[in-house]
Amino acid sequence: MEGKDKKKDLTPISELGEFKLIEELTKTFEIKSEFTDMGVGDDAAILDFKKQKVLISTDMLVEGVHFDLAYTPLKHLGYKAVVSNLSDIFSMNANCSQITVSVALSNRFTLESIEELYLGIRAACKKFNVDLVGGDTTSSNKGLIISITAIGHAKEKLISKRNGAKLNDLVVVSGDLGSAYMGLQILKRENEVFKVNPNNQPDLSNYTYLLQRQLKPDARKDVIEFFEKNKIIPTSMIDISDGLSSEILHICKNSNVGCNIYEDKIPVSEELKAACEEFKLHSTTVAMGGGEDYELLFTIDQKDFDKIKSSPDLTVIGHITQDSESINLITKAEQSVPITSQGWKSF
Amino acid sequence: MEGKDKKKDLTPISELGEFKLIEELTKTFEIKSEFTDMGVGDDAAILDFKKQKVLISTDMLVEGVHFDLAYTPLKHLGYKAVVSNLSDIFSMNANCSQITVSVALSNRFTLESIEELYLGIRAACKKFNVDLVGGDTTSSNKGLIISITAIGHAKEKLISKRNGAKLNDLVVVSGDLGSAYMGLQILKRENEVFKVNPNNQPDLSNYTYLLQRQLKPDARKDVIEFFEKNKIIPTSMIDISDGLSSEILHICKNSNVGCNIYEDKIPVSEELKAACEEFKLHSTTVAMGGGEDYELLFTIDQKDFDKIKSSPDLTVIGHITQDSESINLITKAEQSVPITSQGWKSF
Repeated sequence: MEGKDKKKDLTPISELGEFKLIEELTKTFEIKSEFTDMGVGDDAAILDFKKQKVLISTDMLVEGVHFDLAYTPLKHLGYKAVVSNLSDIFSMNANCSQITVSVALSNRFTLESIEELYLGIRAACKKFNVDLVGGDTTSSNKGLIISITAIGHAKEKLISKRNGAKLNDLVVVSGDLGSAYMGLQILKRENEVFKVNPNNQPDLSNYTYLLQRQLKPDARKDVIEFFEKNKIIPTSMIDISDGLSSEILHICKNSNVGCNIYEDKIPVSEELKAACEEFKLHSTTVAMGGGEDYELLFTIDQKDFDKIKSSPDLTVIGHITQDSESINLITKAEQSVPITSQGWKSF
Repeated sequence: MEGKDKKKDLTPISELGEFKLIEELTKTFEIKSEFTDMGVGDDAAILDFKKQKVLISTDMLVEGVHFDLAYTPLKHLGYKAVVSNLSDIFSMNANCSQITVSVALSNRFTLESIEELYLGIRAACKKFNVDLVGGDTTSSNKGLIISITAIGHAKEKLISKRNGAKLNDLVVVSGDLGSAYMGLQILKRENEVFKVNPNNQPDLSNYTYLLQRQLKPDARKDVIEFFEKNKIIPTSMIDISDGLSSEILHICKNSNVGCNIYEDKIPVSEELKAACEEFKLHSTTVAMGGGEDYELLFTIDQKDFDKIKSSPDLTVIGHITQDSESINLITKAEQSVPITSQGWKSF
């Protein structure tokens, strides 16, 4: 009976209407950025970027394609949806100041469940000092769709694009790779177990790090701040959302260069190694193919090596070569293997 | 057989993958705005707004909720999706310079059908001098979802918000109202007839204007240009996407004022009047409740009346009053009726 009463307290979205819903969801968001003049509540938000360049990036997440609510709590989903967009702005060596969030949802969602989603969105806004300045909520025939646009700013000379990698530049990556992908495999496995035996209480304590990497990744604003502090401007940069293989190909293709990446340099966590043994997977394959780590992959001039070598969080994994047809992984057995990737295929 | 061969030439989206699809869809879009430094092709687009304020607005359209492909050609849908977003920027008395477009689509769509959508998007970009600078394409489990973000710019002192209407200001509307809604009713009726008898060739020649208003509406950039030329800054402004009733309530609520709107002043087309007789509808009800006209509703100081009175496309429909509880329609019988609206309820 208690469960029933509890359910009765929930508010069907259909009771609210669009304007009320937006008001309800955005009333706890404050405007804090000096680059925001006016946020939600008119036809458009008003931003002011002084003499800086404006950067804009957008992303769409679809239930059943990009996430599965069976193992993604709505709050984490909201957080991660923001993070993945901020990551695109940070990967230009720019700071992010605003986002807009549009959500389409089927009538199986209640106000309380969508408020969970917005709690996660708010947590990310707070952590990264970003204002929510607009959005749209509407109904969908099936499932949940989230579309986020992130707006950033930077001085022109500081912006790092994909196309600036030069011969002999060092290829560097932040953090470690593959853990987010592995976290997803663990969640999927537990979900299968749960389907067979819903009373099974899984012990996931061995996988805390991997699950956190999947469920609550962070965008590397700290790395951008490290660059600023140490006067580093990466010659090229991209965030790792689709896997190292895919991203290094983007950089090389856009910069018209090749590269050698050294397998033994690719940073992976101890937790990933252990889980790979358990799942009988090759950790290099996971680190190169697995997406959603939101680490930064960038190139720097060799003269900047001294500035990064003391950072335990940045790893040189290779260098840029001249021949754009030659994008290689140098394996631990010192074999040279061409790196290929289809990118991320959602279709 | 011809039909079958034709179908064989179509390209399933699944053959392309995400990067190829984006490339394919955006390769015919050029960067033209002086406010765009770099568009599609990196993690974020780079914009430069000099010393102007930046405006941003976003919108999500869901198949089965906002449009029905049974009577909306994809090309028109693309055009209209852009127009509805530009309209939000124009309604701040600002110009629009860039858009981002994200699309989620189920596997029933082919590349050719989505190219139709982008043809419409491109036509709107061209007409309104707007650059496509980013976006995302992904798969959906069901139907088509389009999310557009529009970016605009204006000098601060020229921006018209919803909250500036003052006592004795004139309430003005561009164009005529209700025709887009009526166009939709006609399309719905023809669709029902078609379901019963697919060989029936409907004669829609009497409804050309109403259908055009529904299928290919235009945002009123020309009105913004008229303001600039005539040195008019509306004290408040909103675009009519959800119907006159809903929009005038927004202006009055945000400005903390009331108004009298005169029924006999509300501009309606002859085509709307004729169709209302046929459908046994009251044209004032349609003009006040029907959305999607994308006309501008604004208030101006009385001293500006001389500047607008010569424009055949702008109609004074009422004036602002002091009492914010008193938002009235003065009927042709000279009765005062409170204006109410639920806004647009998509749930």
